[in-house]
Amino acid sequence: MTTQNEKSQNMQIGLVGLGKMGNNMRSRLKRAGIDVVGYDTNPAVSDVATLADLSAALQAPRIVWVMVPAGKITDSVVTELAGVLEKGDLVIDGGNSRFTEDFKHAAQLAETGIDYMDAGVSGGVWGLDNGYGLMVGGTAASVERAMPIFDALRPEGPRAEGFVHVGEVGSGHYAKMVHNGIEYALMQAYAEGYELLDTRSDIIKDVTGTFKAWQRGTVVRSWLLELLVRALEEDPEFDNIEGYVEDSGEGRWTIEEAIANAVPVPTISASIFARFVSRQEDSPAMKAVAALRQQFGGHSVKAVD
Amino acid sequence: MTTQNEKSQNMQIGLVGLGKMGNNMRSRLKRAGIDVVGYDTNPAVSDVATLADLSAALQAPRIVWVMVPAGKITDSVVTELAGVLEKGDLVIDGGNSRFTEDFKHAAQLAETGIDYMDAGVSGGVWGLDNGYGLMVGGTAASVERAMPIFDALRPEGPRAEGFVHVGEVGSGHYAKMVHNGIEYALMQAYAEGYELLDTRSDIIKDVTGTFKAWQRGTVVRSWLLELLVRALEEDPEFDNIEGYVEDSGEGRWTIEEAIANAVPVPTISASIFARFVSRQEDSPAMKAVAALRQQFGGHSVKAVD
Amino acid sequence: MTTQNEKSQNMQIGLVGLGKMGNNMRSRLKRAGIDVVGYDTNPAVSDVATLADLSAALQAPRIVWVMVPAGKITDSVVTELAGVLEKGDLVIDGGNSRFTEDFKHAAQLAETGIDYMDAGVSGGVWGLDNGYGLMVGGTAASVERAMPIFDALRPEGPRAEGFVHVGEVGSGHYAKMVHNGIEYALMQAYAEGYELLDTRSDIIKDVTGTFKAWQRGTVVRSWLLELLVRALEEDPEFDNIEGYVEDSGEGRWTIEEAIANAVPVPTISASIFARFVSRQEDSPAMKAVAALRQQFGGHSVKAVD
Amino acid sequence: MTTQNEKSQNMQIGLVGLGKMGNNMRSRLKRAGIDVVGYDTNPAVSDVATLADLSAALQAPRIVWVMVPAGKITDSVVTELAGVLEKGDLVIDGGNSRFTEDFKHAAQLAETGIDYMDAGVSGGVWGLDNGYGLMVGGTAASVERAMPIFDALRPEGPRAEGFVHVGEVGSGHYAKMVHNGIEYALMQAYAEGYELLDTRSDIIKDVTGTFKAWQRGTVVRSWLLELLVRALEEDPEFDNIEGYVEDSGEGRWTIEEAIANAVPVPTISASIFARFVSRQEDSPAMKAVAALRQQFGGHSVKAVD
Repeated sequence: MTTQNEKSQNMQIGLVGLGKMGNNMRSRLKRAGIDVVGYDTNPAVSDVATLADLSAALQAPRIVWVMVPAGKITDSVVTELAGVLEKGDLVIDGGNSRFTEDFKHAAQLAETGIDYMDAGVSGGVWGLDNGYGLMVGGTAASVERAMPIFDALRPEGPRAEGFVHVGEVGSGHYAKMVHNGIEYALMQAYAEGYELLDTRSDIIKDVTGTFKAWQRGTVVRSWLLELLVRALEEDPEFDNIEGYVEDSGEGRWTIEEAIANAVPVPTISASIFARFVSRQEDSPAMKAVAALRQQFGGHSVKAVD
Repeated sequence: MTTQNEKSQNMQIGLVGLGKMGNNMRSRLKRAGIDVVGYDTNPAVSDVATLADLSAALQAPRIVWVMVPAGKITDSVVTELAGVLEKGDLVIDGGNSRFTEDFKHAAQLAETGIDYMDAGVSGGVWGLDNGYGLMVGGTAASVERAMPIFDALRPEGPRAEGFVHVGEVGSGHYAKMVHNGIEYALMQAYAEGYELLDTRSDIIKDVTGTFKAWQRGTVVRSWLLELLVRALEEDPEFDNIEGYVEDSGEGRWTIEEAIANAVPVPTISASIFARFVSRQEDSPAMKAVAALRQQFGGHSVKAVD
Repeated sequence: MTTQNEKSQNMQIGLVGLGKMGNNMRSRLKRAGIDVVGYDTNPAVSDVATLADLSAALQAPRIVWVMVPAGKITDSVVTELAGVLEKGDLVIDGGNSRFTEDFKHAAQLAETGIDYMDAGVSGGVWGLDNGYGLMVGGTAASVERAMPIFDALRPEGPRAEGFVHVGEVGSGHYAKMVHNGIEYALMQAYAEGYELLDTRSDIIKDVTGTFKAWQRGTVVRSWLLELLVRALEEDPEFDNIEGYVEDSGEGRWTIEEAIANAVPVPTISASIFARFVSRQEDSPAMKAVAALRQQFGGHSVKAVD
Repeated sequence: MTTQNEKSQNMQIGLVGLGKMGNNMRSRLKRAGIDVVGYDTNPAVSDVATLADLSAALQAPRIVWVMVPAGKITDSVVTELAGVLEKGDLVIDGGNSRFTEDFKHAAQLAETGIDYMDAGVSGGVWGLDNGYGLMVGGTAASVERAMPIFDALRPEGPRAEGFVHVGEVGSGHYAKMVHNGIEYALMQAYAEGYELLDTRSDIIKDVTGTFKAWQRGTVVRSWLLELLVRALEEDPEFDNIEGYVEDSGEGRWTIEEAIANAVPVPTISASIFARFVSRQEDSPAMKAVAALRQQFGGHSVKAVD
């Protein structure tokens, strides 16, 4: 990536948010020869004391990448940046904001002539080494300007296989939202398969080996499959893991967008509902079904101890 | 029902199986003036000692109603009846046999000239007082012959609103299977609604009252709704019931028939799967999803204690 | 209902919106001896020319029932009423507004001391004769004040079986939303059963008769079942009906609330998705699946003509 | 793969079925230095005229790989092989047989001392070049004996990443069945995502580019994703493909096994049902829902032209 390094040698970026993701991204950007000034509310990891200091430490026109939790925190960072940045600067929200937030943030920054882009970022903790899949929304001019940063963050290989300019502002986060919706359903699909294999231990003598053997040649091979093999090799019966699964906003937003646009999403919604159930100690709905069966059929119910 | 009683006054029936359902049916048949000879493996409730005795106690041509658990027990009763009944007798399987079993049983009995019908019976413990919804399969001649029995068992009111001759042998149980598939989905629908009301106790101050108010005038009024109200009045928070729900064969067969005939049944299958989940202490599938999230995102998992 | 009539003899109500539902409700209110002043944008059916005239035609303290399409039209009616009504008057939104709208409308009217209630109304075109199931939200004082109106609209029989005071403002529409979510799933359940019976015409010789026979005694008996029998008797093969189904807002809101509150609603969502699919000429998703099969398996696809 | 070639140089195999899959497998086996005698009912591609000739052309102890359609054809081939092979020979069913068939075939061949294995094979038309993912069931001795064949067919790379000895006879096809169930749900997941992107063409300006960019770095990267990109590059709007999708037996069997073992499989079943719907000209179920809406709400229906 010599060419990329040359291009990015004079490149400078402000990075707001140095948590798990932000910190890894800083490393990757530095590795590509980009000068990173980082800000975090935790002074132990922050390069500057305030966002005003961040602005002062960067040469105009500035690029500031925001990598903080979606919602109120992103809101307040964008509001504060609107006060400390200048006309011609560019803010990129790389967090997991809902795409509708982008319209608001872009308008807010546009008032003082600050440009805005949104970047959906995929790759998790593996991004540091593998690079991050990037889906960005904004003007062509903004994309061109920030390309050395995208090139530094994205995986090696052809640019089009790890980076896309999806459309105007908001489109990057929309694409990321859909990506995560798909991700939920893919995970659920493998999980159902796992349970089918695990349940028939009378027939399937090597569950881990079966998943492992699917890694080459088969139709179901994928990165998630590789991670499942990795997890099974660490804990073949998942003895140390509870079947309790959180969900972040993007899966829910995907359903809401599907509903709003009359798009049927049976597998994505099934995946979310399975997570909801996984977190319930007891199901009010199934109590109601048990009560109904008892009423009409005299079927015995399982009494609470 | 004077007319029915007159018609059935000389009527005689053998009833095999005097459990919860069979015993209630015996009462209802007797109430209609039909002479019932009951057989059960439990001598305390049985009128005769053996099926041979049952046959001997009935005047030819006999009608024998089988009301025992589906599968092996029904199989063995039918086989034994084939040995003790005579040409011209009629066997009616009123249990919850799979409709494919009927083809087998009809053929088996036909070898010695014994007729066969299948009767799907709905109504649960309430059937004693309300009558039973009946769906029967067999020849028109068999139906006509057994009509006094059907009239005694079915609810009062127009015959066509509680009894149907669905088609040839097997069709009665097929219709009952579908009935139960629908029943599963109806129960799940109310149960999801219950959970939605129950969850927002900040808004919904009277969950029981809400269901109660749906009993007249609304689109969702039904007998199951009335039972739900009854259950809620007994135990408004379902404090004494666990969300653990068994399923009997008919729901599963419905899915299998749907699959065999390429009929999409998303709500019926969702209802069955919800029951499966309700019986799991922990979900292997959700362990796998939790493991995957940990692998790619470093998301923490809930460790087993 | 003599007592009700006496109580309501001096009762007066303003009714905004005289469409299919509003007009039927006017008839039912008048039948109970309530004096109704109706307003509609269609002068042919309206008693007064403007909402100001409506206000003038009613004695203070007034009760105005709003029965117009949810969303912008309800919004503008409420805004206009805020201008023409007085402190102490009461506005009841009987339309299908989202419950979150109620908070807004209540606050808007409270500014000038006008009270507000929301009423979820179920019963469709049958309400004129059967009465409407009512779920209302508001203060106890508002409920008491409007009770003669509720008594006139609700079905005969015990009040608690056709009317409920669910909770504070918003709760009536919340309950109605859940009611409709359940309704979607109930309809889908019967529909899946219908397809299972219809598909096996080799076995099921009387589909209409089967549904008809479920009306008494069975576990699945309901008002929707009766309507299905009615529909089948009019058009036994549904030859004149396309499998194209619209959906109104309430089903979608139910899913959104479920998502917001982490409540699994697999049957309700399946019902909505089935409607979405029913309206597609061709499915983009299934094109993608067909394309994938072709790619890996060389499976032939159905080319567009 | 020098070592593999050496090992397999004296190896000989009979291959029954030279269709799309069988023919590619023959090429791959020959490429590895294995001597293949092929039989097909189509004399143009067959090396021998009959299965008896096939047996005669092979040195005992023989290995015969059966690669014909599951069900009756596999049944008749196995039956015929039982007549022409000898004690000590080995039959491997590499077709898509249901795992329960394996028990039958193994017992049938065991009568004359012929060994039996089942091999689930994944990879489609790409297997010729990429190798086939293999899941096999049988005794350790059988596996060892046939290993040169498995090594020739499986993808390059570590054996454990493209081959697994799953368990006893039947386990290979069981694993393949689950593999295909997962495959269905994975495809549906991407397809739902495609529709979500495609529907919002106001936001998403480059659908193909978005999928393309997911190929590196993202959580959803997979081989199916690559195939989807390939398909989109050939026909970006799927203008030439109808949303009509067949299904083969394995997806259905997966549901049946899930049902039999009480394993919830919401995404796999949703995938199958989506295919069922895709093949319907009109949906009986949705006709019923439309009819119901008309009955209670006076909602207009779409009349059949």
